Amino acid sequence: MSAARENQAAMIIHEVGPRDGLQMESGVVPLEKKEAWLRGLMEAGLDIIQVGSFVHPGKVPQMADTDELFRRLTAGKKPAPVLSGLVLNEKGLERGLACGVELFCLGASASETHSRKNTGMGTEEATQRIIGAAKAAIAAGKKVQVSVQSAFGCGFEGPIPEERVLNMARAYLEAGLRNISLADTAGHAHPAQVERLFGAVLRLDPGVECACHFHNTYGLGMANIFAARRAGVTFFETSFAGLGGCPFTKVAAGNVATEDFVHALQLEGLRKDVDLSRLIDVARGVAEHFGRDMQGYVYKIGKGIGVRV
Amino acid sequence: MSAARENQAAMIIHEVGPRDGLQMESGVVPLEKKEAWLRGLMEAGLDIIQVGSFVHPGKVPQMADTDELFRRLTAGKKPAPVLSGLVLNEKGLERGLACGVELFCLGASASETHSRKNTGMGTEEATQRIIGAAKAAIAAGKKVQVSVQSAFGCGFEGPIPEERVLNMARAYLEAGLRNISLADTAGHAHPAQVERLFGAVLRLDPGVECACHFHNTYGLGMANIFAARRAGVTFFETSFAGLGGCPFTKVAAGNVATEDFVHALQLEGLRKDVDLSRLIDVARGVAEHFGRDMQGYVYKIGKGIGVRV
Repeated sequence: MSAARENQAAMIIHEVGPRDGLQMESGVVPLEKKEAWLRGLMEAGLDIIQVGSFVHPGKVPQMADTDELFRRLTAGKKPAPVLSGLVLNEKGLERGLACGVELFCLGASASETHSRKNTGMGTEEATQRIIGAAKAAIAAGKKVQVSVQSAFGCGFEGPIPEERVLNMARAYLEAGLRNISLADTAGHAHPAQVERLFGAVLRLDPGVECACHFHNTYGLGMANIFAARRAGVTFFETSFAGLGGCPFTKVAAGNVATEDFVHALQLEGLRKDVDLSRLIDVARGVAEHFGRDMQGYVYKIGKGIGVRV
Repeated sequence: MSAARENQAAMIIHEVGPRDGLQMESGVVPLEKKEAWLRGLMEAGLDIIQVGSFVHPGKVPQMADTDELFRRLTAGKKPAPVLSGLVLNEKGLERGLACGVELFCLGASASETHSRKNTGMGTEEATQRIIGAAKAAIAAGKKVQVSVQSAFGCGFEGPIPEERVLNMARAYLEAGLRNISLADTAGHAHPAQVERLFGAVLRLDPGVECACHFHNTYGLGMANIFAARRAGVTFFETSFAGLGGCPFTKVAAGNVATEDFVHALQLEGLRKDVDLSRLIDVARGVAEHFGRDMQGYVYKIGKGIGVRV
């Protein structure tokens, strides 16, 4: 993608830590603490915040309070930020509609094995089901983002043919779903691949709004974000304090830390509207709560010279 | 720089951990262990390995065994890899010439304050002195690399005007020194700046061999490496296990881990000649020796799917 496109493009930050991060922690974070972190992230000025997912509370107890969090956070809420929720099926959609989700995130996996393990369905069936739920959310007046999980490789299957990913993107586009996220679920992406695959999706439809989601398993998360940006991606999914992980890797491998990405953008003079100090405070609270070093860098050291007032 | 240049360019890996990493550790690593790690790095097939620096053993006891290491490693040595040593003055040059250094690395800081603290001289005087030592090394038949330290920002001074860096590069080029490293000594670089500054150096002389050196203080090391590569940089200074730090930051902030960079290149099908498993073994030995998690990613999890045979 051209430099012109990259420079003009918006940098929309989608904070996914409250869902993708906290679902991976063995301990359940108390509701009040979660709410405080979420309010901090909201006040910091991030664009979209994923409050949680609508999965079976018995299976993922870390997400059992998602409905209650939405009720609390949407009460008297300003228009920004947009609050998103992850939904895997019709039951989740129902719950999300009832508690005030503003952006529904739905997805299926490009890996047949991963898809079957997660949903009991193969990629094609799961994709069609997601499209059905997405259409229902739109019919209810909601915003929707659809994703391709394991788009860059799979812990079970290894490399994923790019054509599989493009076929899913085509199916989404044909259904009129134009905000598409490619997720590097297990952290296998590398920059050249990222640029190539997003470039191919944008060639399917130059008007598509692309989102990216990278795990740092092999230390390439931030480099992949910059590659995605170069390809024309405008939505960036990151995680406060670098929370996150992946059940298919042997070690903790978080998302790119939100405050690290905001810091990087501010070094370029971008997104100065985001309150980085507030983000750092929240991340420090997370490290204190879990009693360990988190994967983010900036929260440890504070703002860099480039953003010092 | 054009994609064509990037694709044609060699990816020369300069392992600097034995110097830039171990000088930062509070404990002195025993000579025998250091030698074993260095032999592992040599056998893994890296291109250049920085064995140590020639500084006053009273000031930096971690580097007191540099001369002895060179004597041991050069005895009966094959042509590859090239063994480099960091030299700060004429006395160091003398020691390096006596013990078998193959590539002399010399540098001065673009930050006036950093330069005075390190050498007692301002940038211009320090640069001229380095040029003198570099010419003496060349006259003795040795290879030379000259560097600009604090090229992307300084912990004392904040932002460094790019013209200061370019003036140093001009002085090196006028002296016939064409292998130039820009070092992000404190870890303040960001990708757009990296691409811009290396682009400017390469416009001074398209034939210059550029090297880059990034610390991960704010989580941007790997992204900066990819930006440098895009700009036409061909020498990449990295550190096994992500060793390293910087005296001007409050937390440990290593270099980009060598094994992480090699893994990333191998995902693209490049540098398959390097023995990644061997590098991972060495990094695991480092973590075991220091009894802590190191900053690298790949050594923790092993090879990615993309390079699985």
